[in-house]
Amino acid sequence: MDLELVTIGTELLLGHTIDTNAADLGRTLAALGARVQRRTAVADDATAIADAVRAALARSGFVITTGGLGPTRDDVTKRAVADVVGVGLETDTAYLERLEQRWRQLGRAGPMPAANRTQAQHPAGATLLPNPRGTAPGIWLESPAGTVVMLPGVPHEMRGLLVEQVAPRLAARAGRVDVTRSRVVRTTGVAESALADRLGSLEATLRPATLAYLPSFDGVDLRLTVWGRPAAEADAVLGQGVDLLRAATGEWCYGEEETDLAAVVLELAQAAGVRLAAAESCTGGLVAGRLTAVPGASATFVGGVVAYADAIKTAQLGVSDAILAAHGAVSEATVRAMATGVGARFGATATVAVSGIAGPTGGTPEKPVGQVWLAAMCADRVHAVCVGLPGDRHEIRARAAQAALDLLRRVLSASRDRPR
Amino acid sequence: MDLELVTIGTELLLGHTIDTNAADLGRTLAALGARVQRRTAVADDATAIADAVRAALARSGFVITTGGLGPTRDDVTKRAVADVVGVGLETDTAYLERLEQRWRQLGRAGPMPAANRTQAQHPAGATLLPNPRGTAPGIWLESPAGTVVMLPGVPHEMRGLLVEQVAPRLAARAGRVDVTRSRVVRTTGVAESALADRLGSLEATLRPATLAYLPSFDGVDLRLTVWGRPAAEADAVLGQGVDLLRAATGEWCYGEEETDLAAVVLELAQAAGVRLAAAESCTGGLVAGRLTAVPGASATFVGGVVAYADAIKTAQLGVSDAILAAHGAVSEATVRAMATGVGARFGATATVAVSGIAGPTGGTPEKPVGQVWLAAMCADRVHAVCVGLPGDRHEIRARAAQAALDLLRRVLSASRDRPR
Repeated sequence: MDLELVTIGTELLLGHTIDTNAADLGRTLAALGARVQRRTAVADDATAIADAVRAALARSGFVITTGGLGPTRDDVTKRAVADVVGVGLETDTAYLERLEQRWRQLGRAGPMPAANRTQAQHPAGATLLPNPRGTAPGIWLESPAGTVVMLPGVPHEMRGLLVEQVAPRLAARAGRVDVTRSRVVRTTGVAESALADRLGSLEATLRPATLAYLPSFDGVDLRLTVWGRPAAEADAVLGQGVDLLRAATGEWCYGEEETDLAAVVLELAQAAGVRLAAAESCTGGLVAGRLTAVPGASATFVGGVVAYADAIKTAQLGVSDAILAAHGAVSEATVRAMATGVGARFGATATVAVSGIAGPTGGTPEKPVGQVWLAAMCADRVHAVCVGLPGDRHEIRARAAQAALDLLRRVLSASRDRPR
Repeated sequence: MDLELVTIGTELLLGHTIDTNAADLGRTLAALGARVQRRTAVADDATAIADAVRAALARSGFVITTGGLGPTRDDVTKRAVADVVGVGLETDTAYLERLEQRWRQLGRAGPMPAANRTQAQHPAGATLLPNPRGTAPGIWLESPAGTVVMLPGVPHEMRGLLVEQVAPRLAARAGRVDVTRSRVVRTTGVAESALADRLGSLEATLRPATLAYLPSFDGVDLRLTVWGRPAAEADAVLGQGVDLLRAATGEWCYGEEETDLAAVVLELAQAAGVRLAAAESCTGGLVAGRLTAVPGASATFVGGVVAYADAIKTAQLGVSDAILAAHGAVSEATVRAMATGVGARFGATATVAVSGIAGPTGGTPEKPVGQVWLAAMCADRVHAVCVGLPGDRHEIRARAAQAALDLLRRVLSASRDRPR
């Protein structure tokens, strides 16, 4: 089942409000087997609303609107939709009585304002959808031109009506329900283009699922989506596809769905019975922050040092002046000394260390902005790597923290898999 | 000047991504006097993109698209727009050379994949807009049908191109225009309802500007907006309004617009000639992370300790076993000892310390989840406060980091203002 969304509100076009309703609607409708073909945002303007709803009805025959149902002067959705469908507005007397009652219960003085009375109006022939979270009910309107469902724009009211009123009606309409479902495989340490080269030949095998590449500072997520199939078939196709993707991405893959790399590291560390610590320069606390964001991190992570000044690297981590003088703070020798130093001082058996040039200044031809040295220690072995990270200061730091956690994941995994 | 936005991405329709670009674009364009008439979101589908761009061009003659410029197979914006305008795609050889160079600089193995080469393509006759934050440049295309500006969908790349490339070109196009402009006054440590009580009587004085309250984990931002006035008048009204708001919010106000509290703290510390350090338990590195996110932090901030385990508080910060046994890790005595301990060990003259219950577990009736002790030291005086913060683990940690920075701001300001 295909449909379109029309989002109404001048605030949305001005950018004063971030449209979270759109994502809520998209996810909920896809899971019910409805496909959002298009979403149009227009101002609180009767002509613009009518144009958008008319075109959307012509394309899909089913439109959900959000916004413009309140009692203020700029809320004009109902009249615009009534015009498109060619009916008038009528008043629901039972609902009007409930509004009057509520007005008296709230102890408001005088008669209810005329503006509030408009909330009991709806296009002739429509069904009111009760909204226990607010005063504007949802409206379900069937017409020869198609179906228009009008929901309020307040997010928690919209979500309540969507789940309680709209979803069951959509499910009832559909006979055998086809659904659109997705699964995500998370990778890090590999470029989008390199993944595309490696996975391109797989895409035919993955069908009917489609593959999307979603790059972020954390890496590239691979989203597999099956469109409009029965639920059991969709889940089976996705299961096989995820297995293929995990096999093809190998050690770059660190999890699925919302899995956080820091949580993966903590699980590996806990399973290995090690105590974790971090020594950070350019990431300045981000690695420790990622680890301690995970509930229960205290079972494994004991703490860390942010050694931003070189004097702190020496005094708190035991990096010798000789190493700093000979190699500089951004060097293999320094991160190795940081990793062993924080281990010795914090009584930790697995550690990670980061030192790099986050910019915007401080780069040289030999050590450009984005050059980051990483080291991870486990079972007294220290592994060090140098990476060149793109982006501005914020991006380089976030990517460096993710790369540090990834090195720790690889080192902990290798230690687990190595025969004792 | 009226224009339309076309947002491209199947992810957006499925609700996997919240469209923050839309709000960014809306605000920035309104401030330039351009009015977004309509915003359409479509899937990564050439026909859908072409239909949406064609209709938007017919209505407004000026369209900005976001998304669909990456190197993967589902990125089809350029071809779709070229078809609408009736031109072919051509390759920018200079840009292709830069891409090859970058590929080599990042030390990637082998030749650059073919997919990356498509990033140097653009509709014939278009201008490439340099994107220093990514590999997909923006594209500015003038044609008899109107102007199409294509921007990447990655938010920080989109924002950079918008501010650096699109805004000046739009400003140059416009003659005198009425603008909608906003300014923001940032507060922290005070509830939205308390601010509303205090500022309610000001709202008449602020007219024709309107006042909005924007609460977040960082505090409550106050946004003043002037709608559709000549630029000079709008700026004058906003200037007077901001002065009124700053006076009314007093010590709760820490800056304007995008000012980050961590940058304010670093400026105060630099002016006072102190060296800063941080000792963190429940925030686990977030305070150090906030400070080191500011370029140039190394001039003032020397480092810190994440003392997550109690044993680390003792070994690395000198918090005595007696204090921990008598008062517990979340206590005034502990944060005071952490603040002085990190100062002594790191040679820092101004410090901040945090210890609290971030949850979801670990709360007790006496020390519930959300209870956080903070201490700040400056000129050998230590100030400690206890706050009760709402929300889940993520929110409590973010609010605690902001509260710690705010205590440091107040202590540094008081020290500056105190006669010597």
